[in-house]
Amino acid sequence: MFESVTTFIDDNLDNSIEALKKLVRIPTVAAKGEGLSEAADLVEKMLQDAGLETKQHEITGGAPVVTGWKDVGAKRTLLFYDHYDVQPAEPFDLWDSPPFEPEIRNGRLWGRGVADNKGDATSRIWALKAFKETRTNLPVNIKFVLEGEEEIGSLHLPEYIEKNKDFLKADGGIWEFGGADINGIQEAWLGLKGVFFVELEVVRLSRDVHSSMACTLPSAAYRLVWALNSLKNMDSKITIDGFYDGIKPLTEVELKALEKIDLNEEKLKKEFAIDEYLNGLTGQALKEAYYGEPTCNICGITTGYQGKGSMTVLPARATVKIDFRLVEGMHPDDIHKKLRKHLDSLGFTDVKVIYFEGYPAAKTPVDHPFVKIVNAANKRTHGHDLVVHPTSPGSGPLYLFNEYVPMVSVGCSDFLGKAHSPNESISLENFRKAQHRIVTIMDEMSRW
Amino acid sequence: MFESVTTFIDDNLDNSIEALKKLVRIPTVAAKGEGLSEAADLVEKMLQDAGLETKQHEITGGAPVVTGWKDVGAKRTLLFYDHYDVQPAEPFDLWDSPPFEPEIRNGRLWGRGVADNKGDATSRIWALKAFKETRTNLPVNIKFVLEGEEEIGSLHLPEYIEKNKDFLKADGGIWEFGGADINGIQEAWLGLKGVFFVELEVVRLSRDVHSSMACTLPSAAYRLVWALNSLKNMDSKITIDGFYDGIKPLTEVELKALEKIDLNEEKLKKEFAIDEYLNGLTGQALKEAYYGEPTCNICGITTGYQGKGSMTVLPARATVKIDFRLVEGMHPDDIHKKLRKHLDSLGFTDVKVIYFEGYPAAKTPVDHPFVKIVNAANKRTHGHDLVVHPTSPGSGPLYLFNEYVPMVSVGCSDFLGKAHSPNESISLENFRKAQHRIVTIMDEMSRW
Repeated sequence: MFESVTTFIDDNLDNSIEALKKLVRIPTVAAKGEGLSEAADLVEKMLQDAGLETKQHEITGGAPVVTGWKDVGAKRTLLFYDHYDVQPAEPFDLWDSPPFEPEIRNGRLWGRGVADNKGDATSRIWALKAFKETRTNLPVNIKFVLEGEEEIGSLHLPEYIEKNKDFLKADGGIWEFGGADINGIQEAWLGLKGVFFVELEVVRLSRDVHSSMACTLPSAAYRLVWALNSLKNMDSKITIDGFYDGIKPLTEVELKALEKIDLNEEKLKKEFAIDEYLNGLTGQALKEAYYGEPTCNICGITTGYQGKGSMTVLPARATVKIDFRLVEGMHPDDIHKKLRKHLDSLGFTDVKVIYFEGYPAAKTPVDHPFVKIVNAANKRTHGHDLVVHPTSPGSGPLYLFNEYVPMVSVGCSDFLGKAHSPNESISLENFRKAQHRIVTIMDEMSRW
Repeated sequence: MFESVTTFIDDNLDNSIEALKKLVRIPTVAAKGEGLSEAADLVEKMLQDAGLETKQHEITGGAPVVTGWKDVGAKRTLLFYDHYDVQPAEPFDLWDSPPFEPEIRNGRLWGRGVADNKGDATSRIWALKAFKETRTNLPVNIKFVLEGEEEIGSLHLPEYIEKNKDFLKADGGIWEFGGADINGIQEAWLGLKGVFFVELEVVRLSRDVHSSMACTLPSAAYRLVWALNSLKNMDSKITIDGFYDGIKPLTEVELKALEKIDLNEEKLKKEFAIDEYLNGLTGQALKEAYYGEPTCNICGITTGYQGKGSMTVLPARATVKIDFRLVEGMHPDDIHKKLRKHLDSLGFTDVKVIYFEGYPAAKTPVDHPFVKIVNAANKRTHGHDLVVHPTSPGSGPLYLFNEYVPMVSVGCSDFLGKAHSPNESISLENFRKAQHRIVTIMDEMSRW
């Protein structure tokens, strides 16, 4: 079945890697607004080369949404959601090779975005290209949505979605990321947490002053520390009034699904060099935190002197970047209000809350037929059942799609991928097999 | 009296400014170990040009201590303590002109170190040079101690002092810094607080990870926030057990001296853009905090992503630079032990304390005869009594000298000087008059 297609994939692996490298070389850091329209042009060209019709949707003040489609009159339609933007590559000095000069070493491709999610996007486009080049009929209709602001909270995607709801209608969708766990077992993620990303800013003086003045002048840095301390206690319980209100707990079906999941506790403890997980969590409690808990996380703090040695300064300004991960039943606008109220009630009226991005969580049901199809395909290409996660602990704008199409996240990354960190990479073998799996999912879908 | 000397000073003001500029151009940031031996050579040459015998005391692993002296067989001896190192100039982008390219604008000289304390050092050396060039006999014997590590806690000065106690013996000494207050009134500082500078470091993971993992992995950044929160409460009371033990309160004489001091509360509130001082302090209570209280101040925090926009990362590492100002009765070694014990007792055994520098406080008595001499000289050159501060809220290694020589801090800086901050500057008129005052102090001393 489609042997000419999979043979083309294997014979052209080097070409698909070259195509991916070309995309990785564009430093599409959405947080900095760099390289986005150039990358949009390139992915549109890649979709066209794979035989799809395309359109670039210009978004005011945002990166274009690129769509591609091919209607072959099939019964079923498969949709892909990917993004061509990446996380900032800082800190640069921790990379073994430059983040935007992709390099192959030890059977892996290294570079910012290869795992999240340019590798996936390219693998999916090249699976379609293999059909085109081998003149094989597509067994399902295809739709592609590629955006350029996923890493900054898909700020303008709702605008596109609002105008193009019909395009989203499909029988199943493959979400941007995914891959193998620490044991090489393929995983599928059925949901995503929401996110609420803010910067808190405190300015208490007209300028930095000599630190001897700390006996009489206010400290922006300490104000920020006290404010941060008030948000989360040492048990990592978030102490904003009403923060946990309305949360939908994991269902019985989901809790049952968790039992089948091995979080590889011991192996990962070694990998992260930790003696124990947060609050000493283990087993089912660890899983429930992983899949079911919201977070309040410091992504970065900036204040005062950060150079070598000592500098005795009282900083006038202090800022912190915080991401809150939200679970079902929470909404960023509500958390925004509660955060402001919390700060004000404690007298932190001097702490400014700057809104960066936010959207709610969403999930595809564990027992949806499309999940079974993806699992069947995986069994054929990888030889084993998928480990099915009811949700990822990470975030994405799944809530925008979920109403129109059930989505499953499988991809070509793996545990060593280091998404969002220095030395991001993918295994080239995973990249190859991910292309095979897409072909097989299409085959399985055509018989649905 | 010494009119030819003061005339020389006025006629050669441009030359003394050029000499100062030359010294400022060497970026002697002790925290980075830059330019120190070059600057030591230059100040030695300046002392020689002023007619002094000199010596560079090589210090293992430290910047040289440069001494100069001239014994004219006078009854009294005057000692100067200065330093040729400066604070880091960061953040560079807040400077209106490059910190190490001194520039004259609006009657002021701008550059890192002009106010703290290369301007003072140069003004003192040029006062002596004026005697030499006009072939005027010095009325007192002169001693100079110039070090290159004041801004990193005079790490190696004790080593020099231990070996050269005899050199320190003098009837009076002029300490490195000083100047005019916000109203242009000259101030004298009779003491210095001690300092204890540390870096706290928390490492909780082998590497930065995707922030979605914050639901199960520990946060170095939050550990640091909680640790910092435990050191000082929102009333700025330091909560380390025993921190305030043994503190010598301000004496009756000192409290009486405070009454004469105008802290220019309202003017400075405007300058610093604050509604009120720390904890709403005013009047005598504000003064007692300023002169009599120790501090725990955050000089800088470093953790995670600090670039533009959002990056969702869980940082593996977090550090903070803290300076504690110490008052009489406290010792850095004791505070070091108490800090460690405090952190351990709260379970912060993961917070590493890295010792940077430390020394105790010291004071010259308010009623010492040498204070009267400096005041008399100031009255002759500046036309008014000095505002006498029993101590500065800042720090310096005065404790090393105090046993051998009473020290008074007067200098050529002023309220606009911005020591330790961007856009450091001095008034050229203050620089000129400071030279006159040195000449007059020598004259007054000769009649003591």
